Amino acid sequence: MSEPAVVQLAHVELISSKPEETLWFFHDLLGLEESARQGQSVYLRGYEDWYHHTLKITEGSETALGHVAWRAASEEALEALARRLEQAGLGRGWHEGDLGHGRAYRFVTPDGHPMEVLWEVEYYHPPETMRTALRNRPQKRPLRGIPVRRIDHVNLMVREVAPVRDFFMEYLGFRLREQKIGQEGQIVGAWLSVSPLVHEVAVMRDATGARGRFHHVAYWYGYPQHLMDAADALVDYGVRIEAGPGKHGTTQAYFMYVFEPGGVRVELFGDTGYLIFDPTWKTVVWDVSNESDLERSSIWFGGRLPETFYTYGVPSMAWETARAR
Amino acid sequence: MSEPAVVQLAHVELISSKPEETLWFFHDLLGLEESARQGQSVYLRGYEDWYHHTLKITEGSETALGHVAWRAASEEALEALARRLEQAGLGRGWHEGDLGHGRAYRFVTPDGHPMEVLWEVEYYHPPETMRTALRNRPQKRPLRGIPVRRIDHVNLMVREVAPVRDFFMEYLGFRLREQKIGQEGQIVGAWLSVSPLVHEVAVMRDATGARGRFHHVAYWYGYPQHLMDAADALVDYGVRIEAGPGKHGTTQAYFMYVFEPGGVRVELFGDTGYLIFDPTWKTVVWDVSNESDLERSSIWFGGRLPETFYTYGVPSMAWETARAR
Amino acid sequence: MSEPAVVQLAHVELISSKPEETLWFFHDLLGLEESARQGQSVYLRGYEDWYHHTLKITEGSETALGHVAWRAASEEALEALARRLEQAGLGRGWHEGDLGHGRAYRFVTPDGHPMEVLWEVEYYHPPETMRTALRNRPQKRPLRGIPVRRIDHVNLMVREVAPVRDFFMEYLGFRLREQKIGQEGQIVGAWLSVSPLVHEVAVMRDATGARGRFHHVAYWYGYPQHLMDAADALVDYGVRIEAGPGKHGTTQAYFMYVFEPGGVRVELFGDTGYLIFDPTWKTVVWDVSNESDLERSSIWFGGRLPETFYTYGVPSMAWETARAR
Amino acid sequence: MSEPAVVQLAHVELISSKPEETLWFFHDLLGLEESARQGQSVYLRGYEDWYHHTLKITEGSETALGHVAWRAASEEALEALARRLEQAGLGRGWHEGDLGHGRAYRFVTPDGHPMEVLWEVEYYHPPETMRTALRNRPQKRPLRGIPVRRIDHVNLMVREVAPVRDFFMEYLGFRLREQKIGQEGQIVGAWLSVSPLVHEVAVMRDATGARGRFHHVAYWYGYPQHLMDAADALVDYGVRIEAGPGKHGTTQAYFMYVFEPGGVRVELFGDTGYLIFDPTWKTVVWDVSNESDLERSSIWFGGRLPETFYTYGVPSMAWETARAR
Repeated sequence: MSEPAVVQLAHVELISSKPEETLWFFHDLLGLEESARQGQSVYLRGYEDWYHHTLKITEGSETALGHVAWRAASEEALEALARRLEQAGLGRGWHEGDLGHGRAYRFVTPDGHPMEVLWEVEYYHPPETMRTALRNRPQKRPLRGIPVRRIDHVNLMVREVAPVRDFFMEYLGFRLREQKIGQEGQIVGAWLSVSPLVHEVAVMRDATGARGRFHHVAYWYGYPQHLMDAADALVDYGVRIEAGPGKHGTTQAYFMYVFEPGGVRVELFGDTGYLIFDPTWKTVVWDVSNESDLERSSIWFGGRLPETFYTYGVPSMAWETARAR
Repeated sequence: MSEPAVVQLAHVELISSKPEETLWFFHDLLGLEESARQGQSVYLRGYEDWYHHTLKITEGSETALGHVAWRAASEEALEALARRLEQAGLGRGWHEGDLGHGRAYRFVTPDGHPMEVLWEVEYYHPPETMRTALRNRPQKRPLRGIPVRRIDHVNLMVREVAPVRDFFMEYLGFRLREQKIGQEGQIVGAWLSVSPLVHEVAVMRDATGARGRFHHVAYWYGYPQHLMDAADALVDYGVRIEAGPGKHGTTQAYFMYVFEPGGVRVELFGDTGYLIFDPTWKTVVWDVSNESDLERSSIWFGGRLPETFYTYGVPSMAWETARAR
Repeated sequence: MSEPAVVQLAHVELISSKPEETLWFFHDLLGLEESARQGQSVYLRGYEDWYHHTLKITEGSETALGHVAWRAASEEALEALARRLEQAGLGRGWHEGDLGHGRAYRFVTPDGHPMEVLWEVEYYHPPETMRTALRNRPQKRPLRGIPVRRIDHVNLMVREVAPVRDFFMEYLGFRLREQKIGQEGQIVGAWLSVSPLVHEVAVMRDATGARGRFHHVAYWYGYPQHLMDAADALVDYGVRIEAGPGKHGTTQAYFMYVFEPGGVRVELFGDTGYLIFDPTWKTVVWDVSNESDLERSSIWFGGRLPETFYTYGVPSMAWETARAR
Repeated sequence: MSEPAVVQLAHVELISSKPEETLWFFHDLLGLEESARQGQSVYLRGYEDWYHHTLKITEGSETALGHVAWRAASEEALEALARRLEQAGLGRGWHEGDLGHGRAYRFVTPDGHPMEVLWEVEYYHPPETMRTALRNRPQKRPLRGIPVRRIDHVNLMVREVAPVRDFFMEYLGFRLREQKIGQEGQIVGAWLSVSPLVHEVAVMRDATGARGRFHHVAYWYGYPQHLMDAADALVDYGVRIEAGPGKHGTTQAYFMYVFEPGGVRVELFGDTGYLIFDPTWKTVVWDVSNESDLERSSIWFGGRLPETFYTYGVPSMAWETARAR
C-alpha cells in the first residue's frame, strides 16, 4: 500500500446560469462564508473548512461542473502525478493557480470530468469579529442559515464505472471502499477514498449513457438534527428537495439531496456514516441484481430515490473553455 | 377541578439598561422576530409564537422585570379574576392595553411581582416574504441565529414560597405539579401549571431573603441539538452561560441558563420534559433535606448549579413606575 | 368552552393473530414493559406511562382493533357521558372493568369503532429493581430496544369524516385543531384534541369506503434521534416500515409508520410537533384540492406516503364479541 | 511524512477487581457484544467494531490497565517496529498472540504503560440471528442498553508529557494534533493520531506525579443524543458520572466520563469532533497559562471538570505479571 498521490478533496467549481440565486442558496441557507470575489466568481467555504475556499461559483451561460480540485500529498507527489497524467494522455497542463492556492496541474478523468491537483494552499484568516477562542476551528460559527461545516465529497456520473474507478485507484491512490454490481457483473457504482472517510469520490453509472456529467457535491453537518433543520428551512424557502432525509445502505450516510437554484444537485450529509481504519479493508460489495441488496444499498430507511437520481446530472465544462476565461 | 382563570403565559416585559445589546442577544442569537417598536420598547416573538409578541424589551436605567402577562380563559374569566384580585388587595387597576392586546388588569403577586391578565389578543401577520406554506406555523423559520420556537415559562424568586404558590393556585387556577421541601418542611420551590406543561410558572425561595425578584424567562426549542447549538454559539459570541446544558430532575427539563447582556437570566429549554394529562396528578415531592433528592432534583445529569443560581435575580419594576411611562 | 367529558387517551386494545410476534415487536423492539398477563391478553405500557397499561394485546383469530379507552374528566363526567351516549344509541353498556381500571362505559363511534370511557385507574408500581430516583418518572428507563416513552394518539379510518368528527366534539368534548378539505368541500381528515396536543384522535376518510376501520396507534419518543434509531433497528430486524421518518405538514409530527407483525399500523412519533395553548384557536384548514396544500399537508419533508396509507386498515372487533370473551 | 508504523487502535485490556459488575456495565448498559470467554477473561466489541474484540476484561486482584494494542501498517512494519523498540530498550518480546489476533510484540511506553503491536487480526462473524443486510456493518444493532458503536481512543497519564509524546511520534508514527502548554512552557497535554481522528492517544500530565497510569478508554457513539441517553440511563442505574455531557475545546469532543464499577474511567464520545485531512496540519496550541485558553480548552460548554479528572487514574499492570498468566 503506497502512499496515495492525493490526500484530500480541496474544492469544487460550479458554473451557474443563475449566480445570484446560487449564491443565496449557499450563503444564506447553507451558511457558507464568502472569502473573495474576482471576475465572474465568488469563493466560499464552510465554517470548518481551513483553506481559502472549498466552493467557487462562476457565472456561466449554462450550469455545469467547472472543476474538482484535489490536494496532493506533497510537492513531489504533485509533480510525479502530473508526469504520470501527462503520459496517460489525460493531462491538460499546468495552470498558475487561483485565489487561495498555488500552481495546479489540470487533467480529466477517462470520462472527461475536469479536475486539477495542487499542493500549495492558502489558509483562511477570519476578520477580527469572526475570530474564535476555539483554536481548532477557523472561525466563529455563523449565525446565518443552517450552516454546513465542511466539504465532504463529490459524485461523478460516468458512461462506464470501471475505467474511472481504476483511474482513481491507479493514478490518484484511492482505495475501493464499496461497490455495486448489477446484472452480468456490470459495475454500477464505486465509492473510493484516500482517508478513513468511505468516500471522497463516488462514481456512478449514468443511466442515460452520457459521459462526463456531475452528480453532486456534498457538504457535511455531522449532526443529524441539522439535516432535519435544513430540510425544514429548504422547504419553507422554496428549494426543491429531490430525496431524503434518509439513510443510504451504501456508505451509511444520513443524506439529503437538493437542487441549488442553478440546477446542481447538492448533498447535505447529516452524520459521519462510518469510518474505515482497517488497512486490509475488503471492499463491501452490494449485488444489486438481487432485490434485497438493490433496495437496502440505496435506502436503508427513508423514502425511495426517484428516477431523476439516476438520470439527472449537469455537464462538465471543458478545461479548454476554462482556459479562455 | 374548576376551569382555571388563566390559560397561558402571554408575554414578559424586561427592562434593560443595555437595550441594544439585549436586542442583539434576542434577535441575532436567539432568532426572535421584531414585531414593532414604540417609545422605548421593542416587541419580539419566537417564530412559533402566534400572538403579536411574547417579549417586550424596554430601555430603563436599571435592568428589571417589567411585568408578566397571562391570558385569561375568557372575557368573563378576566372580569371575575379582576374583581377577586381587587378584593384581595393585589389589584393595581385596569390598563387600556398595549400593542398586541386589549385592556389588561394589573396586579402583583403577594411577593410583589408585577403581572397583568388580558383576554383580547392580536395575532401576528408575517410580511409577504415570511409567509409559509406550513399552515400551522405563523411564519417561515428564521435564517438567523439558533432560533427559539416559543415562550415557555417564567420563574420567580420569592421570600416565602407558600403564599405565592397558594396565590397562583387559588386565584389564577394553577395546579401544583412538583414541589421541593427542605429542612423542617420548608417549601423551597414549587412548579405550577394550567396546562399539561409541568410549569408555566415556578416559584423558588430567594436565598438572599429578598422579595419580588425575577429568576428567568424560558424560551423553548423542543430539539436537544438546538440547545447544544445555542451553547456553542453563545460561547463563541461571548455570552455567559451560567449552567447547563444539562437535565434537571425537577420537570425533567433539558436546560441551559444564560445571562442576556442586560443581566436577566434566560433559560433555553431543549426538549419537552414531560407532559401531565392525568386529572388526578399527585404533586411530585422532592425532599431536599436528603442528599439524593437534593442532588437529583437539581441535576439529573450535567454540571452542578452554581451558587448564583440561588442568589442572583433582577428586581421587579413597580407598576407605579410603569404607569408613569 | 365547557370542560371536556374526557381528558386523556387511556389505552388501546389490539387483537393479534400473531400474538407472540406482536409482543416481540412491542416488548423487545419498542421497549414496552409488561404489567400483567391474563387470559389471552398481555398488558403493556411505555416507561413514562403512569397507569397500569396503555396497550392490551389479545390473541384472536383475526387482527383487529379491540377497543380504545378514554379517561373521563371525573366520576360525574363519566356518568353524564354514559347517559348521553345511551340516549344517542351509541352506548353498549357498563362493564365492570379490567386489570388496571374500574368500571367502564362501552360505546361505539358513529362509524362503529369500539370505545370505552372510565374514571378509576390503577397506577403502575415498578418492581424494586426498576424504581428510579427520578420522582416524576414511573420507573427506570428500560435497557431494551428503542424504548418509547408514552402513548400519544389514535387514528381512525371512517366512511365519512364529518359525523365522527362531530361526535368527538359534541359528546366527548374534543376541539377541532386541523382539518383537510378536498374536492367540493368534502372533509377528508380531522385532527382533534382535549389537551394542548394537536390530537389525541385523528379521523381520516377511508379511501376504500369501508366503515369502522383502525388506522394506527401512536407512541411517543419526543427525541427525533430515537425515531432514526428505531428506523435503523426495525429494518435490521425485518419489520416493515410503511413510511417515514419524515415530517407531516398536518400536526407537524416527525413521524414513522410501521406494521407490527400482526398487521396493525403503529406510528412512532419523534418530536412534540407543536402544542396549542390558545383558547381561541382557529382550526388550521388545508385545502387539499390544491396541489400545494395536498403535498405540504401530508409531507413537509421526507418520502411520499404510499397508497396503502389511505387504503389499509384493520377492522374493529364488535363489542359483542368482546363481551363473549 | 513517512507512513506510520501503526494505523489503528486495536484493543484494550482492563483488569477488574469486580469483573461481574464491569461486564454488566459494558454489556448491559453500553451494549457491547461478547465474542468469547477464556480463562479469567471476557472479550467484547462494539457493534461496529470489525475485529474479534476491542475490549478484554480480565479478573484481577486490583483494577488496572492490562495493555493497549495497536495494529501495525503491515507485517513488515510490525517487524521493523519490533526491532526499533527492542533497540530502544522498551521492547518486552514477542507473544504468540491471543484470541482474535496473531503474534504481538510487547513493549512499554517511556512512562511504563504496557502495549503491544500486532498485524494479523481475526474478523468477527456474527451468529445467524445477528447477521445484517447492511453489508458495511458487522452485525445487527444490539437491542440492549445504549449501544456504543466502536472503540475510539485511549488517554494516558504520565509523569512527563514530552518524552511519551515524542515516543509516539518517533516510534509509532503519530502526528501531534493538539497540545496544551502551561507555566514556563511545560507541556501538560498532547493529542496524537495516525488518522484523521484528532487522537487515537492522548497523553496528559499526572497531577500527582505518578508514572504509568491510565486515564481512560473511549467508545464512540457519533450521535449526541445517545450520549444524553447514556447519561440518563447511567444515572438511573447508579453508575457514577464524573463529568459531562459537555464539549471540550481540545478535540471538540462532545464527551462524558464515567467510572465503570471496577474503577476505570471510560469516556463516551457523542459526536465526531472534527477530522484532520490537511497533510500540513499545524498543531493547535492552547496556552493554559492564560485564563481563556485554560477554561476554553477543557470546557467549551458544560460543567467544569472536577479535580479527580487530573488526579485519578488506574495503574498499569506490568507485562511481567501478564506473562505469568
